[in-house]
Order: sequence, then C-alpha cells, then structure tokens
Amino acid sequence: MNKVCISAYGNTKFSHEDAPIEKKLLEATKSLFDQNPNVSQKDIDVVLVSTNDNTKYLSSVLSEISGIEPKISHTVESLCNSGTNTIVSAYSYLASGLADIALVVGAERYDSPGQILEWDQLRGEYKHPIYWASIFAKSYKREFGVNEEDLAIVSAKNHRNAQENPNAYSKKAYSVEEVLESKSLTDDLRLLDCSRPCTGSSAVLLTAESVSRKFTDVPITISGIGQKTVSAGFTKNPSFSSMVSTQEASNFAYDMAKITPKEVDVAEVHDAFTVCEPMALESIGFSEKGKGTQLTRILFETSDKKINPRGGLIGSGHPLGATGIAQTIEITQQLQGKAEKRQIPNAKTGLVHNMSAAATSSTVLLLES
Amino acid sequence: MNKVCISAYGNTKFSHEDAPIEKKLLEATKSLFDQNPNVSQKDIDVVLVSTNDNTKYLSSVLSEISGIEPKISHTVESLCNSGTNTIVSAYSYLASGLADIALVVGAERYDSPGQILEWDQLRGEYKHPIYWASIFAKSYKREFGVNEEDLAIVSAKNHRNAQENPNAYSKKAYSVEEVLESKSLTDDLRLLDCSRPCTGSSAVLLTAESVSRKFTDVPITISGIGQKTVSAGFTKNPSFSSMVSTQEASNFAYDMAKITPKEVDVAEVHDAFTVCEPMALESIGFSEKGKGTQLTRILFETSDKKINPRGGLIGSGHPLGATGIAQTIEITQQLQGKAEKRQIPNAKTGLVHNMSAAATSSTVLLLES
Repeated sequence: MNKVCISAYGNTKFSHEDAPIEKKLLEATKSLFDQNPNVSQKDIDVVLVSTNDNTKYLSSVLSEISGIEPKISHTVESLCNSGTNTIVSAYSYLASGLADIALVVGAERYDSPGQILEWDQLRGEYKHPIYWASIFAKSYKREFGVNEEDLAIVSAKNHRNAQENPNAYSKKAYSVEEVLESKSLTDDLRLLDCSRPCTGSSAVLLTAESVSRKFTDVPITISGIGQKTVSAGFTKNPSFSSMVSTQEASNFAYDMAKITPKEVDVAEVHDAFTVCEPMALESIGFSEKGKGTQLTRILFETSDKKINPRGGLIGSGHPLGATGIAQTIEITQQLQGKAEKRQIPNAKTGLVHNMSAAATSSTVLLLES
Repeated sequence: MNKVCISAYGNTKFSHEDAPIEKKLLEATKSLFDQNPNVSQKDIDVVLVSTNDNTKYLSSVLSEISGIEPKISHTVESLCNSGTNTIVSAYSYLASGLADIALVVGAERYDSPGQILEWDQLRGEYKHPIYWASIFAKSYKREFGVNEEDLAIVSAKNHRNAQENPNAYSKKAYSVEEVLESKSLTDDLRLLDCSRPCTGSSAVLLTAESVSRKFTDVPITISGIGQKTVSAGFTKNPSFSSMVSTQEASNFAYDMAKITPKEVDVAEVHDAFTVCEPMALESIGFSEKGKGTQLTRILFETSDKKINPRGGLIGSGHPLGATGIAQTIEITQQLQGKAEKRQIPNAKTGLVHNMSAAATSSTVLLLES
C-alpha cells in the first residue's frame, strides 16, 4: 500500500451565507491554489466532492470551473461524516496506485437537506438530530451522574477556542453560566449545547508520498484509518451513552498506525452536541467510560486546547460535507506547526473523529508529522 | 496493487415501479445473497450505494436493513456513470488493502433527479439530455454522412437483444421502420432513439483475488480501469461528434490491462440515445471514426450480440445509478459462460463503457475470465 500524505489545503469562512454550492466549492479550491502556487490543475488525477447538497454532478462542475480534467471524479455522501469518507476514498485511490494526486473538497449550505434523516421518521418524529441528542444527553447524565454544568463546560471551552479560529462561525465566547441560561430546546438540551448548521467549504490535497515534496516541505502522513457503521436509525444504536462505532473505528485506526491513545497530541472530535465530546473522548480511549467530562473540565480550567483547538463543531459551525475536511486541515496545521494562536506545542501525532447520525457510523483518522 | 474480482451479483427487473429507493436497494442485495449462499453479511467490509436519489445516508440504511455492519460505507454520485464510479471506488478499497470484500449496489427510481443537469441550464434550456443528444445526432450525421436509418438500426438491434434479457424494461422488439415511425421528439430524435428512465437496482460483490474462490468457482478479474472527465456542461465538450472522455478512458484501461481493442470479445456501451452507440464504438477503438454505424448494421444483419447483448440502455432501460452495475453484471455473466440465450461463444475478455452528461465524463472497465 503506497503511503499517502496531506500536502495542501484551502478553507473558507463558515457563515450563514446564502450562496450557491458551486461558489463555495470553488472558493475553497481557489484558496488551496492561492496558498500553494506549486499545485497546478494538470497535476490533479482525482477530484472528489463531499456534500449532502441535492445538486448533481458537482465534482465535474467543480472540475470544469477550476480548469481541472481529472481521471476519477465523483461525489461522496454519508451525512455528517461525508468529509472523512471522501478523504478515505481519495486515500484508497492513491494507496492502491490508481492515482497520485487527489483534490478533496467538501461544501454545504446552511439549509442542507442532510440535517434531517428521514429514515429516523419511521419510528416516530425523530428525524431531526435534536431528538437523538436529547436521548443521548439524558442517558449519559443518568448513567454516569453527569450534570448540566459538566456539559455546559464543553460549549464554553469550544466557543472560547473558536475565538482564535479566523474561519469560525461563532465570533463570541460564552461563560458556563451563559450556556446554562441559553434558550431551552428540550428537557436536556439548550441552544448553546448544539452545533450550528452553516455554509462553508474546505479543501485538501492528498498526494502519494513519493510526490508529496513537490508540493510542501511538511507533508503530513495519514498513518491510520478506521471506519465502522453499526446502523442508520439511532434506535438501532447498541448504546445511547457511548459511541460503539467510534470505539471500533478507533481500534482499527490505532492498529493500522501501531500507536496507542496516549501517543495522540491533539484531536478534533465530533461535538455535534455538548454530550458528544465526552462520549467521543471515552470511545477513542482518551478517558475512562463515564469520565469524559472530568477531562473536558480540566482542559477548560487550564485553557488547554488539545481537544478541538479550532473550536469543534460547536464553535466553528457544522457545514456537514465540509466538517470532516475542516477537522483534518486543523490537525494538519497543528502537526505542521502552523496553527498560530491555536498551536499545541510540539504536536507530532493527531486524531480526527467524524461521525454521522447519533454515531451510527464513525471515521477515525490518525495523522503524523 | 492487489488484484480484484467480481465474485457475485444480484439483479432486479427494470420497470416503472413506484417503489421506495430503499426497497429497490434491498431487492438487488437480497437477490445477490439468495443466489450466493456462501456470502454472509459478516464477510462484508464495504457497502457502497450508487444513486442520484436525494435520500441521504442510503449506504447505512441498506446496511441496517441487510444486517451488515461494514467498516467503510457511503454513497457515490456522478449522474449516469455513478455505477461504474462506485465499482472503481470499491476496487480501490480492495486494491489498496484497506478492505477485502465490498458490496456495491446501485438503484434509481423512474423519476430520478439525475435526469436533468441544472448546470446545463446556465447556457440556455439545455438541462434535459434530449438537447445534447439532438445536437450530437445532428453533428454526427452531418460530419459522417450518416442517415436516420443508420441510427434506427441501433434501436432495432438493442430492443431485439433485450428480448433475451429477463430483467429488461422493454418487452417488445421493433423493426427499423417502426423506430423511424415512432413519435418525433426533436428534429433529430424519435422516441425509440432514446433510452428510458426507469426503476431498478443491481448489486455486485467485489473481492480481493486472494479470497474470491470462497464465493465462486469463476471469479472475473477487473484487469483495466480508465476514467476521464473533460467538463460538466456539454457546451464545453471538445467535440459533438466523438466522445473525447471515452477515448481517453479507453486508452487508460487498455494500457492497464495490456490489451488492444481487437482482443475484446463482448462489450456493453452506453447507448443513452442511438447516436451514442456508434460514437462510443469509434471512441473505444472498435471501429474507425465515422464508421460506427457500419459495424452496428453488420451486427444487426447477422444477429451478432457482441455489442450490448442485454439490450443496452435502449432495450434494458436506464435506472441511472444501477446502469453501470447492470452493464458490469452482463459482462461478468458473459465471461462466466452464464449468459444463457445472450451468450457470446467463448468470450474471455469484456468491456464496460459508462458515461455521463453528453460524454463529459466516462468510465471504461476491462474484465477477464
């Protein structure tokens, strides 16, 4: 299997902009080309688009408007983890030797049809994520004696981290008290417990290791990949207080990279709602079961940005198809020492956790400098 | 690169059924399992869905209702060649070593949103395929002195071939005269020049060669893959009388398989409209430029089923996301000697040609027994 690196990236601001999806895809792509004059359109063998948008043939449209004539080109969708699924797909084209250079661009509009899962309507009015998130929050709090403040800390921490992310949707920090006083949406969720759907786009260039030095002095290697789907509907999820798909995906990724959770210096985890962050930290082996909020409290109190340095989904916003790609860019920047005020000192190994629909499926990526 | 085989398949009838997309996906999957008792749900590492349907998270939904808990799972879309893009994606997961066994299922409804390309609206009212197909027909006839009868023969041939395909949408054979007398839709196209959007689903199991004998005594090897995208909008197509993307994709595939067009015994080519078949035959090197209808006339007069033995898109129907997979199944059956009344004697090497949107992108697969 050929080694694969991340060698360039481009971002857009995450916002509430009412723009065509094609425009956002082009914007992130242009940002990548602008920041990397060594990358030329004719180098690119593969163009993959990650989105939940209903517009068809977007990878060919993006290719046309970007002046690229790729060999392989298609769109990938898997709800909220479309981004990392697309990266893994591009990885496999390069690892197999079918291609050497792949452009992966994710984009979404604030009104994406991927925000609801019609499949979850079959067992009652559960198609909006707020329903599974409420059941997760109630179940997690009850099982582990976690309280509302424990969860509010996650939101306060991630909104604070987002202040140093120039592309973040949220421009404002919130105290724990402000989170607790925000509008109540269900028994167990307040407005500031939730990530916000938004408009945004992110792009990465994946390259076979053999050609990566053509594009960057600091290629970042994808050393571990793990994925798992346990179901589609959240009521079939084996647990409401842990993420079984995340745990299995993590195990696959650690085995492939031959490392343990202790060796990870920085991570982006999929905090679609506050309760998701401690659950994810437990499922990826950063903390014992039920102790995730103890870790997030310490990180908050010590201003440690190790988890979700760009502000996570809660602080950065959640443009579904772009999220996994934006997470991967953040970890790449951290491992390149280019994360500016968000920088974790001496970060060598990073993790990306991206999931869909109540963690019915998860991707875990391990990156190394 | 690990070798990859097609080791099992399942089909549904192509029809005008008004059924949920999930039901059709399950039907082809169940057909695959029913015909292959050696395949077990727990064997399957990858589940990919090919469709233009707007329903999200379908690969996870299909996994759930089929009792599969895959590692890798997502949907692939690229309009009419979604099917072969999905097969190539699965191929790369197996060739790279990330996985060993992949289930690829394509499905579409008769009212698929992939039938129009909004992008082509930007330069006039061209978003329905009939517009580019009319321009192709006019341009091809003018450039090469081809007449209406030459094109009508393609329809008569493929409707006749479809009579031996138990899953075909069309149940009726038509004479050349009947094709010429069918309803006129534009200056250059009649109703029977067109393939029909329909409801249908097709499934294939791809396996690493090392495990393929567990599932079948006659695995078929994917020996060549070629893909090319030249644009999205048809007005940017470099030619209206040949398929440039098909030509490039063919060259890649022949190079990879180390064979020439002469060595191909049987082929499925993407006859979305009658004019597409001779153009494709020229672009994949089966005939000289402008001479494609001479070949289709000989095939018609000698009842030779070498090209589009299952009746092509015109005879079988065109459920977009399923089409490339159904084409691949036909060639697999031919190379296994299991094509019954459609069988080409002694077929050892086969070709699949699948394209999108006025051949702005194409896939060519080469299969060997």
